[in-house]
Amino acid sequence: MTAPLIGSIEVLAFDIFGTTVDWRASIAEHVRAVAADRGAELDAGAFADAWRDHYLPSMALVRSGSLPWTSLDELHRRSLDELLDQFAVASSFDEAARRRLVRAWHDLRPWPEAGAGLERLRSGYVTVALSNGGFALLTRLVKKAGLRFDAILSAELARQYKPSPEPYQTAARLLDVQPERILMVASHNWDLAGARQAGLRTAFVERAGEKGPLRQADRPGGEAEIVAADFLDLATKLGC
Amino acid sequence: MTAPLIGSIEVLAFDIFGTTVDWRASIAEHVRAVAADRGAELDAGAFADAWRDHYLPSMALVRSGSLPWTSLDELHRRSLDELLDQFAVASSFDEAARRRLVRAWHDLRPWPEAGAGLERLRSGYVTVALSNGGFALLTRLVKKAGLRFDAILSAELARQYKPSPEPYQTAARLLDVQPERILMVASHNWDLAGARQAGLRTAFVERAGEKGPLRQADRPGGEAEIVAADFLDLATKLGC
Repeated sequence: MTAPLIGSIEVLAFDIFGTTVDWRASIAEHVRAVAADRGAELDAGAFADAWRDHYLPSMALVRSGSLPWTSLDELHRRSLDELLDQFAVASSFDEAARRRLVRAWHDLRPWPEAGAGLERLRSGYVTVALSNGGFALLTRLVKKAGLRFDAILSAELARQYKPSPEPYQTAARLLDVQPERILMVASHNWDLAGARQAGLRTAFVERAGEKGPLRQADRPGGEAEIVAADFLDLATKLGC
Repeated sequence: MTAPLIGSIEVLAFDIFGTTVDWRASIAEHVRAVAADRGAELDAGAFADAWRDHYLPSMALVRSGSLPWTSLDELHRRSLDELLDQFAVASSFDEAARRRLVRAWHDLRPWPEAGAGLERLRSGYVTVALSNGGFALLTRLVKKAGLRFDAILSAELARQYKPSPEPYQTAARLLDVQPERILMVASHNWDLAGARQAGLRTAFVERAGEKGPLRQADRPGGEAEIVAADFLDLATKLGC
């Protein structure tokens, strides 16, 4: 069937939100800060969860063709405006506050071992970010988080969102490698399923706290050819 | 007229061939090694110069529309095939040798201070590679050379070569900044002229040895708003 995984992999493509950075704690913190600043009463954790609940559905509108290509920043803004209404705090958040919240997604804390794990993995593989975040968002986020990838790739370069095949295929084309020489690293089964369908290999990294205390994080599913506890464990499993 | 340069710049975009890496010495060395391997008599330095002489004319065919988008690897291969005929050594270079030579452009030595200069510049600015080299070429070259940029950008993302405006404009769009907040750093006046025309700011870095002993390197021309002796000098001039 498929070739042995180690030895055939040249590129590691990392999902970012949840896999590499702790979006939930970071967004809750930003929401808390902006709400305090504006004197609004808001459960920041629940708000972060609700915002992220819009994530896949908002991109599905682009994936289905109901919306033309729309950047993640714009999708975040649309869902933010809706949610501020739903949480009955719209009047407390002016334009500047809303912009600040959309930009919060450019500034998310990495998981504690992510930087060290990426350094080890870079020694044996070409490492790239491959996220639904925009190119500018990812470039700023990765820089601010002090992480190092060999290149930034984004769904924006394909003008289509994961798990549609185009972002994975565009990564293979731009890196001039066969899809089966790319290992997609993610903590979400939907991402690995999309990668698999586009011909990539798959590694699941467990991020039990990814969705915070109120939601259940993904458990490794049938799409994962490797399961790792974190990036350091992945490095060990990939011989770095 | 134009805004003061320092303070208005957010992104530094670096040309690669000649500006960041010593293509001439590196290519001559690769040519020497492959020729020795194949028992061919060849003046490697002169061959490197002749190969590079095809660089702008080959891209001009794409820029004028005479050729559809063609990757730099393919353009290098076309001019290589021609030159091996002209140097009367075509029979010594089989397919594998030619592929090895095209790939030589993925493996070029950085100028001695480039890595240290980039590290200093990263502390104050978003730093990106912006070259006519392909995305895969640049990703491999930068990794092998041990250099660090915040992101790799390539003319390939615009499917048009510098100094046409598209690569510069695509960089601004993908990084979500106004063109005038990008400083193009190059050792070639043609590149700075193109950048200027697309609305970017410009810095000339002197690389006196860039074209080897047989050719004259560019001297800073009227397009340069800053002139620096090397990347460390640029860092000092930009306050890093």
